[in-house]
Amino acid sequence: MGIDLSMYSVRTDLALEAKEMASGRYGDAIPGVHTEALEDDDMKVTKMHISTAEGGQAVGKLPGHYITIEVPRLREQDSDLQDRVATRFAQEFAPFLQRIGLGKEAKALIIGLGNNNVTPDALGPLVVENVMVTRHYFELMPDQVSPGYRPVSAVAPGVLGTTGIETSEIVQGIVEKSRPDFVIAIDALASRALERVNTTIQIADTGIHPGSGVGNKRKGLTQEFLGVPVIAIGVPTVVYASTIVNSTMDMMLGHFKNQTSKTDQIFGMLDSMEENERLQLVKEVLDPVGHNLLVTPKDIDQFIEDIANIIASGLNAALHDAIDQDNVAAYTH
Amino acid sequence: MGIDLSMYSVRTDLALEAKEMASGRYGDAIPGVHTEALEDDDMKVTKMHISTAEGGQAVGKLPGHYITIEVPRLREQDSDLQDRVATRFAQEFAPFLQRIGLGKEAKALIIGLGNNNVTPDALGPLVVENVMVTRHYFELMPDQVSPGYRPVSAVAPGVLGTTGIETSEIVQGIVEKSRPDFVIAIDALASRALERVNTTIQIADTGIHPGSGVGNKRKGLTQEFLGVPVIAIGVPTVVYASTIVNSTMDMMLGHFKNQTSKTDQIFGMLDSMEENERLQLVKEVLDPVGHNLLVTPKDIDQFIEDIANIIASGLNAALHDAIDQDNVAAYTH
Amino acid sequence: MGIDLSMYSVRTDLALEAKEMASGRYGDAIPGVHTEALEDDDMKVTKMHISTAEGGQAVGKLPGHYITIEVPRLREQDSDLQDRVATRFAQEFAPFLQRIGLGKEAKALIIGLGNNNVTPDALGPLVVENVMVTRHYFELMPDQVSPGYRPVSAVAPGVLGTTGIETSEIVQGIVEKSRPDFVIAIDALASRALERVNTTIQIADTGIHPGSGVGNKRKGLTQEFLGVPVIAIGVPTVVYASTIVNSTMDMMLGHFKNQTSKTDQIFGMLDSMEENERLQLVKEVLDPVGHNLLVTPKDIDQFIEDIANIIASGLNAALHDAIDQDNVAAYTH
Amino acid sequence: MGIDLSMYSVRTDLALEAKEMASGRYGDAIPGVHTEALEDDDMKVTKMHISTAEGGQAVGKLPGHYITIEVPRLREQDSDLQDRVATRFAQEFAPFLQRIGLGKEAKALIIGLGNNNVTPDALGPLVVENVMVTRHYFELMPDQVSPGYRPVSAVAPGVLGTTGIETSEIVQGIVEKSRPDFVIAIDALASRALERVNTTIQIADTGIHPGSGVGNKRKGLTQEFLGVPVIAIGVPTVVYASTIVNSTMDMMLGHFKNQTSKTDQIFGMLDSMEENERLQLVKEVLDPVGHNLLVTPKDIDQFIEDIANIIASGLNAALHDAIDQDNVAAYTH
Repeated sequence: MGIDLSMYSVRTDLALEAKEMASGRYGDAIPGVHTEALEDDDMKVTKMHISTAEGGQAVGKLPGHYITIEVPRLREQDSDLQDRVATRFAQEFAPFLQRIGLGKEAKALIIGLGNNNVTPDALGPLVVENVMVTRHYFELMPDQVSPGYRPVSAVAPGVLGTTGIETSEIVQGIVEKSRPDFVIAIDALASRALERVNTTIQIADTGIHPGSGVGNKRKGLTQEFLGVPVIAIGVPTVVYASTIVNSTMDMMLGHFKNQTSKTDQIFGMLDSMEENERLQLVKEVLDPVGHNLLVTPKDIDQFIEDIANIIASGLNAALHDAIDQDNVAAYTH
Repeated sequence: MGIDLSMYSVRTDLALEAKEMASGRYGDAIPGVHTEALEDDDMKVTKMHISTAEGGQAVGKLPGHYITIEVPRLREQDSDLQDRVATRFAQEFAPFLQRIGLGKEAKALIIGLGNNNVTPDALGPLVVENVMVTRHYFELMPDQVSPGYRPVSAVAPGVLGTTGIETSEIVQGIVEKSRPDFVIAIDALASRALERVNTTIQIADTGIHPGSGVGNKRKGLTQEFLGVPVIAIGVPTVVYASTIVNSTMDMMLGHFKNQTSKTDQIFGMLDSMEENERLQLVKEVLDPVGHNLLVTPKDIDQFIEDIANIIASGLNAALHDAIDQDNVAAYTH
Repeated sequence: MGIDLSMYSVRTDLALEAKEMASGRYGDAIPGVHTEALEDDDMKVTKMHISTAEGGQAVGKLPGHYITIEVPRLREQDSDLQDRVATRFAQEFAPFLQRIGLGKEAKALIIGLGNNNVTPDALGPLVVENVMVTRHYFELMPDQVSPGYRPVSAVAPGVLGTTGIETSEIVQGIVEKSRPDFVIAIDALASRALERVNTTIQIADTGIHPGSGVGNKRKGLTQEFLGVPVIAIGVPTVVYASTIVNSTMDMMLGHFKNQTSKTDQIFGMLDSMEENERLQLVKEVLDPVGHNLLVTPKDIDQFIEDIANIIASGLNAALHDAIDQDNVAAYTH
Repeated sequence: MGIDLSMYSVRTDLALEAKEMASGRYGDAIPGVHTEALEDDDMKVTKMHISTAEGGQAVGKLPGHYITIEVPRLREQDSDLQDRVATRFAQEFAPFLQRIGLGKEAKALIIGLGNNNVTPDALGPLVVENVMVTRHYFELMPDQVSPGYRPVSAVAPGVLGTTGIETSEIVQGIVEKSRPDFVIAIDALASRALERVNTTIQIADTGIHPGSGVGNKRKGLTQEFLGVPVIAIGVPTVVYASTIVNSTMDMMLGHFKNQTSKTDQIFGMLDSMEENERLQLVKEVLDPVGHNLLVTPKDIDQFIEDIANIIASGLNAALHDAIDQDNVAAYTH
């Protein structure tokens, strides 16, 4: 009775990272994958549509719509920037719902995945704590609800290691009883790159799929399993030590290639290896001695709180017309 | 959208208090109500069996089995005493399960009612956090589970005010998916007497029934609703200001009756009133000015943590034969 | 080694309450005590100046300036009201400093009294956590500090029960090393009335004086002891069970006096007793059985956080000209 | 007003790591440095005595006594192992005090450095919260203190970024007022190696010296500054991304050297570089893009709590004869 099953919620890769890796192999134009990006001084918003199974296979992600909001300065605790990110999140999320056919009255169930007692895994529960919940007013006093709101419920179901029950089964039970029109699942992710940690928000309409390995019999939070559309919101909050090493080597190679053509002399075979090969090599060294830990930045406590507030504020504004999308912060504490 | 629906989990009266009140009217022998008490220096354990509907009506509680463990010194932060209470809890709880027909392999689902962010209401979630969860081992690697354990799962479903969904519906959904043989529901209670707060633990096989009033359409955590037996574990953690006043007046009357026969001169009509009448009078004064608050002792943070540990330790020992009932504390952190 | 010395920081009475009690004996005009009050729908601000030793004796408080801000609806979690209270606090606090001769450059040391792990006693530490600290910029890079700021430092020194050192001695040591021009001490208070708990803020220039009893040899946070002016900011967060009982009896008498002249028949001798006599009687009953607990409202977690934010925001705006007093909330998280 | 001064408490290198690096250059016998190590299955205890300035310069640490307890499995949440580490800590710490001339009555002041709100930096404040404090009993009722105890006080002074005052000045003020015979300062450290994070405890009698850079004018917690001996207890809780990369490269080189003689073909010039050169190269790449973050393992919340308990238990047993060194855990919660 000693294996660790608690890391359920930290596993998904970012579609953007998957795409970047694939582009290295395919060049920029991958068939069945359409990407557009908008950038200003502080934020880069990338929309990706994977329309075919082939495109999905090329990128290594499921077909669907993905939005990625990258804010490199998000770790600087600039509360004005945070407000603008929440506003932008709301402005992207509302049309995202409409595009996949979810109207303004559609009932939402927000699921905060993760473990409240593990700071980098507490994003989901923290969003649930801060989001505005309205469903009970519609149930108990429907005639007194002001216009401009929709029924929203929110649950943090815990993780397998602390509940003993598959999270997807708990959510399935709640969906069957409370009958939402769609589910929004918030999750902390693992990233390939330290710089993405706590600076990137991903929205996807593909649901959440458990990783392989121990959990390979495990059910995901998907439309197939739950019977309603599942929108996943993910933020990378941890990174494997091995990926820090590997992506740094990558940066070193790039760095020196700009300065000299003799990188093979500096890096030997490391220079000519495929990135995946090199990652394998790094893991081969770190895994047996237990050094391939998941790590998170030192200031994770503040980061998680800030991003949970951004997402909660953004969801409040996107889900309720009565909440002003230009002043999202006023409605969340 | 302003009414407060969050207090769901603080409402139940203690059976012992109900019985005491009834005894005033009926004398000690209430038909259909059987009581026995065991007392030592530190603890008093009272077992009550209400066997008939009439008995239930007389006491104002549902027919069923009740155990109350009273430990007046429990607020003194004596860790040795806490260990003995946990041990005693385990020794009472294990046979309680057998008496109502739940064998050693019966699968338990522990439900921690209440709101993690309201300290006196956080008992349930804290027990869930500290209890040993084993169900996933039975599901994922049944052949590797040591003998002497049973499948135990544990969920803190939140409160209506923060989820927007009736707690009983969430639990019903989880029961249908995870199929436990019985449910243990932990809840913070309101008491009639300040001295019971954080010093008393009640075990009952009657489930948990929502109060009247706003919630009168609300479903309880009962065998009828969930389809499996529901054992409620409750600890009073709050008390209404009005009941502090009323029970103090009661004590004052008692105090002076021992000293003088002229309590009517001292207390006027207060002396001759029925207790309920007087409580009404107190409420009549406090309610309109908003003073009839639920209050809790100043040191509630430490009390709640201590009692949650006691109950979690006690449950671990009672539910798993492999855990030594004489050394319960070793298995909980 | 079992006595409880940890309650150091919860003891002070409100000057307003002391004055109210005194007025009962003296009538409204107490010599040497000048009071003026301003009231709108949500707030009542009372300024009291006790100018003579006799006035102080009459009221039972030290001579000095007192401001009390009463906000009966402050427990309703109305964030707009909270912002207005913070603004009002700033508007009262800034001229208060000037009146006692503390200019805009005067260096402030904010001391957050109380125990972080006891929610109703955590007000001081929470304010320290949320207030803007600037002293180190003035020390380390004085030429880079923008105009409109003053040096502010902030420390939460802990309580005697957890440090083993008199809080006043710790503060004295810090004052000698860091040389502020004045000290602001934030403290949680005990109130005579449940309705004042978490709804009232008191500002006084008389420092903080330890209670009598065990602590009678203990030194206060006073100008005499520290060598610089000490402004105390206090919020009642707890109330003794006995005072709840007593003030309710008071309200009951008042209530029935409006309805009948025969209160002596209803309340007997309780009717004709002096309030203090009756309180003694209540304590006589509660103390021996350990029921005279300090209690706090059930929702204390949220209240404490809200009021700590109000005071931190208000202090930021009052202490720094560069912070807009009309938009105080923007500078605190 | 934007520079970050808050990282005061995470900076010290481990003496053991410094020695390992030096041994690479000097061979095992460094003059003026005496080392002895004891190892069992779970723990390795290394005692180092740097007796000369030359030895100190060779190792890069100040002359003094160092004890390092390494417990590779400490992150596995084995509560039995934790108890044994606490016991061992006590058994090492008590003679350490005597060796430097501190008798059984010598008064201790425990200083918990670091920031309570930054999990990997909260070790010091957490130890202070859990340690047994006795000084006030000696001050207030000296005749009632049982034999076998000494006066112990404990303060968590905060960090410069949240107080605005140099931590060393706060401590100096407290030392002057409370007059301890020695200071024990607990601090979270940065490590060169991810595997040391949360698995290693270092004890040193050299005090705590602030790093270079911004803080170069800053005063340390040293006997010279405080006037009494200062014993530092440190645990590495964070690691720079650059050191993860560098030490992994080191491991990779070592790994492949065991397999092939042609590491220069695999690693190019990386193979022949000095370790420090290579680290510079890694930093050169990471620093400009802001990727050289301090990181901490994902499960830091649990680790910090466990180690704080170990150190608090160990200190209680080492400081008070009345506490059984073989059963240290019983005295800490």
